[in-house]
Amino acid sequence: MKNLRIGMIGTGYMGKAHAIAYRTASAVFPLSASIECEMIADINLDLAKQKAEEFGFNRYTDSWQRLVSDPNIDIVDICAPNFLHKDIALSAIKNGKHVYSEKPLALNSQDAKIMTLAAEEAGVKTLVGFNYIKNPTVKLAKQIIANGEIGEVVHFRGTFNEDYLADEKTPFSWRLKREFSGTGALGDMGSHIINMAQFLVSPISSLCADMNTVHHTRYEPDNEALKEVENDDQVHMMVRFVNGAIGTIESSRIAWGRKNGLWFEVTGTKGTIIYDQERLSELKLFTVEDRDSRQGFRTILTGPEHPDYKNFCVSAGHGLGYNDMKAVEVRDLIEGIADSSPMLPDFRSAWEVTKIIDAAEVSYKNGTWITVE
Amino acid sequence: MKNLRIGMIGTGYMGKAHAIAYRTASAVFPLSASIECEMIADINLDLAKQKAEEFGFNRYTDSWQRLVSDPNIDIVDICAPNFLHKDIALSAIKNGKHVYSEKPLALNSQDAKIMTLAAEEAGVKTLVGFNYIKNPTVKLAKQIIANGEIGEVVHFRGTFNEDYLADEKTPFSWRLKREFSGTGALGDMGSHIINMAQFLVSPISSLCADMNTVHHTRYEPDNEALKEVENDDQVHMMVRFVNGAIGTIESSRIAWGRKNGLWFEVTGTKGTIIYDQERLSELKLFTVEDRDSRQGFRTILTGPEHPDYKNFCVSAGHGLGYNDMKAVEVRDLIEGIADSSPMLPDFRSAWEVTKIIDAAEVSYKNGTWITVE
Amino acid sequence: MKNLRIGMIGTGYMGKAHAIAYRTASAVFPLSASIECEMIADINLDLAKQKAEEFGFNRYTDSWQRLVSDPNIDIVDICAPNFLHKDIALSAIKNGKHVYSEKPLALNSQDAKIMTLAAEEAGVKTLVGFNYIKNPTVKLAKQIIANGEIGEVVHFRGTFNEDYLADEKTPFSWRLKREFSGTGALGDMGSHIINMAQFLVSPISSLCADMNTVHHTRYEPDNEALKEVENDDQVHMMVRFVNGAIGTIESSRIAWGRKNGLWFEVTGTKGTIIYDQERLSELKLFTVEDRDSRQGFRTILTGPEHPDYKNFCVSAGHGLGYNDMKAVEVRDLIEGIADSSPMLPDFRSAWEVTKIIDAAEVSYKNGTWITVE
Amino acid sequence: MKNLRIGMIGTGYMGKAHAIAYRTASAVFPLSASIECEMIADINLDLAKQKAEEFGFNRYTDSWQRLVSDPNIDIVDICAPNFLHKDIALSAIKNGKHVYSEKPLALNSQDAKIMTLAAEEAGVKTLVGFNYIKNPTVKLAKQIIANGEIGEVVHFRGTFNEDYLADEKTPFSWRLKREFSGTGALGDMGSHIINMAQFLVSPISSLCADMNTVHHTRYEPDNEALKEVENDDQVHMMVRFVNGAIGTIESSRIAWGRKNGLWFEVTGTKGTIIYDQERLSELKLFTVEDRDSRQGFRTILTGPEHPDYKNFCVSAGHGLGYNDMKAVEVRDLIEGIADSSPMLPDFRSAWEVTKIIDAAEVSYKNGTWITVE
Repeated sequence: MKNLRIGMIGTGYMGKAHAIAYRTASAVFPLSASIECEMIADINLDLAKQKAEEFGFNRYTDSWQRLVSDPNIDIVDICAPNFLHKDIALSAIKNGKHVYSEKPLALNSQDAKIMTLAAEEAGVKTLVGFNYIKNPTVKLAKQIIANGEIGEVVHFRGTFNEDYLADEKTPFSWRLKREFSGTGALGDMGSHIINMAQFLVSPISSLCADMNTVHHTRYEPDNEALKEVENDDQVHMMVRFVNGAIGTIESSRIAWGRKNGLWFEVTGTKGTIIYDQERLSELKLFTVEDRDSRQGFRTILTGPEHPDYKNFCVSAGHGLGYNDMKAVEVRDLIEGIADSSPMLPDFRSAWEVTKIIDAAEVSYKNGTWITVE
Repeated sequence: MKNLRIGMIGTGYMGKAHAIAYRTASAVFPLSASIECEMIADINLDLAKQKAEEFGFNRYTDSWQRLVSDPNIDIVDICAPNFLHKDIALSAIKNGKHVYSEKPLALNSQDAKIMTLAAEEAGVKTLVGFNYIKNPTVKLAKQIIANGEIGEVVHFRGTFNEDYLADEKTPFSWRLKREFSGTGALGDMGSHIINMAQFLVSPISSLCADMNTVHHTRYEPDNEALKEVENDDQVHMMVRFVNGAIGTIESSRIAWGRKNGLWFEVTGTKGTIIYDQERLSELKLFTVEDRDSRQGFRTILTGPEHPDYKNFCVSAGHGLGYNDMKAVEVRDLIEGIADSSPMLPDFRSAWEVTKIIDAAEVSYKNGTWITVE
Repeated sequence: MKNLRIGMIGTGYMGKAHAIAYRTASAVFPLSASIECEMIADINLDLAKQKAEEFGFNRYTDSWQRLVSDPNIDIVDICAPNFLHKDIALSAIKNGKHVYSEKPLALNSQDAKIMTLAAEEAGVKTLVGFNYIKNPTVKLAKQIIANGEIGEVVHFRGTFNEDYLADEKTPFSWRLKREFSGTGALGDMGSHIINMAQFLVSPISSLCADMNTVHHTRYEPDNEALKEVENDDQVHMMVRFVNGAIGTIESSRIAWGRKNGLWFEVTGTKGTIIYDQERLSELKLFTVEDRDSRQGFRTILTGPEHPDYKNFCVSAGHGLGYNDMKAVEVRDLIEGIADSSPMLPDFRSAWEVTKIIDAAEVSYKNGTWITVE
Repeated sequence: MKNLRIGMIGTGYMGKAHAIAYRTASAVFPLSASIECEMIADINLDLAKQKAEEFGFNRYTDSWQRLVSDPNIDIVDICAPNFLHKDIALSAIKNGKHVYSEKPLALNSQDAKIMTLAAEEAGVKTLVGFNYIKNPTVKLAKQIIANGEIGEVVHFRGTFNEDYLADEKTPFSWRLKREFSGTGALGDMGSHIINMAQFLVSPISSLCADMNTVHHTRYEPDNEALKEVENDDQVHMMVRFVNGAIGTIESSRIAWGRKNGLWFEVTGTKGTIIYDQERLSELKLFTVEDRDSRQGFRTILTGPEHPDYKNFCVSAGHGLGYNDMKAVEVRDLIEGIADSSPMLPDFRSAWEVTKIIDAAEVSYKNGTWITVE
């Protein structure tokens, strides 16, 4: 059996999530290749060493450049801050590595395009961490739509709201600077719900967006300096899909009470589905095919008869968690490389997301509808 | 005690709701005047006679013109189709009657302006049937916002979705013709959620709207003729409020599964409230003032400590119904006329709603943001 | 059309609910007889006078004895405290009046038997205010069970929990004295959920109960005297039904957070239904007849296709309230007397409830199972 | 760092869950010892070999006897059918191994007592797989109760209902034979909710139980033979706790629609908590300390401020899954052996559960209350 060797860059929140996923995936799924956690990189060498031990990586380094050129690495896994994605990915591609990158792929669609074309030219495989579409419940939603069970889709309403910056006393961070993070709520969480809309409905043909920053300044964590917040706290847009449906997409990082508020409602000519990421193992379905006086939204609990679930548990309704979606993602990574099946969402899919983000910014600045592409 | 004599025009769905409300209101509330159901009008004289008996009105007529000029009528209650509102109201005002009109007030803001100015000049009192803001639960929401319990409002998301035309086989009706109904989902249900946004947040300063018709033709109920649907099945808009908040407003009459889907989420700098008209005696509240690890959306069941509720029932959580909101509305009608307190929402408030509806249509046609007023 | 003249005894909470119901019922339903609110009785003459005006009764008295023997009364409506039900009902029956009594019918099953036999012998009609089974949503539940849509019923779990005495500082009242109220939570709310179990499943053949009093003493409202609480704060029982099903029934008046917590889950061999009175226009239904991977509890919103609803409103999901159930009850009262149809739940049904209450007390005292009847 | 070597017996559903947990735990938690998956046993040697590879165990065997006496095993992990627990555990203890056993510990309390005393005498550590109390959300519930946030506990209502045998066509299995499984729903799922009640409230001092079998016969899966079902499909009991609270406990394996219906409501003198395992990252809390007209059940989403959660994820509301509770259990296993802290629930705790199960059977047979111990 093939052995795929991982080189992971970044040791923070997402680094740990990936480390857990590598372990869990190989216990949960029958994989076509074994996973070897080969090398970890962090600019802080001590941290790199410590995390290598904690996460179970063989080697560590303080240089991502060294990692991407190491001959014993097959997959470069990018968990570094957003502004580094482009340089790391291009170097990895140049070295012939497959690339597994966290989202958002790049700070803008120009960069995403360069990265996509480079990967496609080099023939390496790419995967981007839009983990929420990996949930069996979301795949069930996709199946229901694809089967025509809710008819033709006519409307999509999607939000991804959290409250991690709702408190005005939460200190300044790199996420609030354009050069390091690009947009705010739009790129950070908005990218997930845009990807979801594209995954479930169809490409977006045009949009009109609005956004604002509510808390204009925040204090640095370590000193008393007041810094200007450079990107959006909340954003929403009206979209038109290629298939004729219309919809709205919204994201906020100051939405008190929302902890993982990725939420969508898809309405078709024969029914409606509703999903709430805070109850990630439930899908609500209304279908006109139910008998007249017995119609209503039903709550389907994900179970072994739905995609991928039975690998985790043989009983319905026992519930998957956040990390389990990352395990599915790692399964897709390993299988996508081990055999020749397409690996999605790849850089090209993620580029599509960045196009929407860029268009939303232009739309907001100009106060007009923007045609995408 | 004063006696207020009602002349009601229209005997359909809303006519019955008003008739029930006149009865219930006087049992539930200690009113400053008694209510006399004096005369009912319907273009079909037999129906007028039958409904006079059923609803308990003293007299009936087939001429609304006769009703509005009858000397023994104090209040003209308009439950007739939308396109008649203007003529009836203006005649009633000319005859010095107070006017209680169902929504939408008029087919466009020009007409609403004429009606508002006529009423104000004549010094008669007016009330428009935006009954959903009469719910004790919604008044509680208003109190919470007004008290600053959720801080400064920064975002509003509101929908009013139903599925009464979701089935493409549902036949054609006057609601689908512009000359009789004006806009579609926008005016019919959208007017309620626009009014709600204005009531809870602040006036709307600008907006950008999108809409479409999904089912372009429908058959006449009585024959096989295929008729063109002339107004919108679904609409949404981005709005900016005078107070600086931003938001989205949506309405659909083809949203499968939604039966009375008036729903809003208002986010402030200190908390969030959520309301769902399908659970009309519940309000969800998240507040940062709860202790750190004990925060969460709480579900408040409306009870006697909230506005108006104790008149209906002395125990919390026993639940009010749709007709109860109309009883509150009738209480406001009677009290507003009996004493000199302001009666809201009056024609001027309803005119504000029609301005938004008109602006939404222009915005959609031009593909641009529209400044209101 | 016949005119039925009401004589109502008691002007408190339930008196007002009945007064509202008389008004609302005649607006909502096409009744076979008109309702005349003829006389009201309260031991306090001033209060009787005031309430006669407020509730719209023609006459008033401070003597229930005078009321029950008045020749111009057709129906005696008993909203007086529980310990008076027996004497009033027997006098009314002796005078040939139909009797509409609030629950619980009597303080024990011996009294209930006497009252039932007296009414049946006299040939008067009786109705007892178990209003929760009048809800269209509950009638839908009954239909679903009767149709066999959930197969054979195998389990029932029902509760009726509130928190009106959960605060230990809530003062003493007549409800806490055995001579005035009989049992505590068991008779007050337990009677409703026992009635519900009998209505939905079948008669109860045997039971075993447990109960206790948590707050043993409370202060009188007007002075500082500490009084002993004489009945149960919380009770539960295991029951076996005549049809072979088993179940549990629970009631509490100290269940913090529950405001109208009448709740039941009925499981059959083909499905399950769940009802929560705090969301009184929703019924949850799980049926094995749904397609395999699409099964789940669906939430049916009561609408015009369900029993009685369309009289209140032509649109689904608009919601009925607590008082609307009383209006249905009054409709049943009027129709049951006007024509010769059976009127349910009558004294005999209510007697069945008191049998269970008595058996529960014996079971608790003896620590044994009790066979009913 | 110490290395703890696992010998696991059984390769079915729970075997896989344990295998996943060993992997996940070491990625999620900083453990005091490393985990080595040393040997796996299955009566079918081919299956043992295959699962050793899949689950990542070093060695395999078809003899549990060989495994428990292997010198290179520190912990014997029992995932074998219930009837084997006793013999395996006693042999493991005799060989000085620590024992990690799935529930129920034994087929009856006599066996559980023997096992408990043997382990305590030998000084080995024991852990039983009551995984649901390992959920951070349940630990939060425990904290809330222990802190007195809901006052003194006065009532507990707990269920563990599923529908895995609700279909009468589901074939016969070992779970339905007394000699292999002991009781039915009572021991299988009831043991979890009994353990939960003991964990959250206090020991149970007496109980009275009822139960029945609804589907008396089932067909063998491989042939047409009709076999008699020997244990209970559904059971419920009234319990009295040592601390004075009363409550009900229920379990069913034929409750249509319930997929992981472990559910409890704990009422105290100052508040109430509600938990539903099908939404395992939510806890509902009602507290009287909220301001009067703002009270209601709040939904707390588990997050990093609650026990153990931040090891899985740094953001609240992202959700844990079923397997994550097993990872916490494995963490407790490893830490409990590596240091000298108590490991719970141990054999003694599980013995307490079997006492309740035995008492319930006696109570049912005799139709009486049973004092426990």
